[in-house]
Amino acid sequence: MPGKRRAKPRSGCPVSVALDVFGDRWSLLIVRDLMIRGLHTFKAFEQSGEAIATNILADRLHRLGQAGIISAEREEADRRRVCYRLTEKGIDLAPLLLELLVWGARHENTDAPCALIENMAARRDQILGEVRRRWQARDGRPLQVNGKWIWP
Amino acid sequence: MPGKRRAKPRSGCPVSVALDVFGDRWSLLIVRDLMIRGLHTFKAFEQSGEAIATNILADRLHRLGQAGIISAEREEADRRRVCYRLTEKGIDLAPLLLELLVWGARHENTDAPCALIENMAARRDQILGEVRRRWQARDGRPLQVNGKWIWP
Repeated sequence: MPGKRRAKPRSGCPVSVALDVFGDRWSLLIVRDLMIRGLHTFKAFEQSGEAIATNILADRLHRLGQAGIISAEREEADRRRVCYRLTEKGIDLAPLLLELLVWGARHENTDAPCALIENMAARRDQILGEVRRRWQARDGRPLQVNGKWIWP
Repeated sequence: MPGKRRAKPRSGCPVSVALDVFGDRWSLLIVRDLMIRGLHTFKAFEQSGEAIATNILADRLHRLGQAGIISAEREEADRRRVCYRLTEKGIDLAPLLLELLVWGARHENTDAPCALIENMAARRDQILGEVRRRWQARDGRPLQVNGKWIWP
């Protein structure tokens, strides 16, 4: 809840920490999970380490869908499973996510290695191009930079 | 409140609209007022057209101060008046604000002229340089791009 101030951030993720400082976090954390971490299902979001409550997760997925930021598809292999995907409007949040990441990593205590983050800031266009390429290609693997997971 | 969904956005400002879609808005709207609109006082934030409640404004200013994003100074001319200013950590939110602005203007119904926003997106580095120069020079006028107010 944005109204609460926690002494300790829920996780060391820079985006999470940045949003702990200035706002509600859940919707953008779901976008982050889809965009960078390669997560696509309700269960995966629920277990992504941010301790999101089931009802809040369901609510935020609904809102993101209503806002046209994500879409829900049935999986080919198992039609009972719903797979979430960013829309064009959703993938357009990539520059914002990158700025949240860089700001959080620079100004708050996070688990992100400083050198990696400065490297990402310097190669902004290249990274945003790769994020979009993966989205277009439906490449569901977590984003890597220089062969390393960018996520703490 | 982030938990509420409004049918109609509170204002046509792209940042406001973007945050209406995915999160709490107040803290970043105060940062926007400081950074772009040249507002510096409690009264000016209160009257800035977003209908922020006095207690929420006071709370968010306190939090932003605690987070090291803004500082409060007494005015030279009138020592009773408090003037708020972004810190180095606060002015570092400029790229994030710019991305919120561009995304909001592209994907939501706002009052921002599309041509102006696309022009800003294309001249990103120049605009961010100007925002920082103004901050360093304590230039309190609203930000202009090509001689026009960038704010709807």
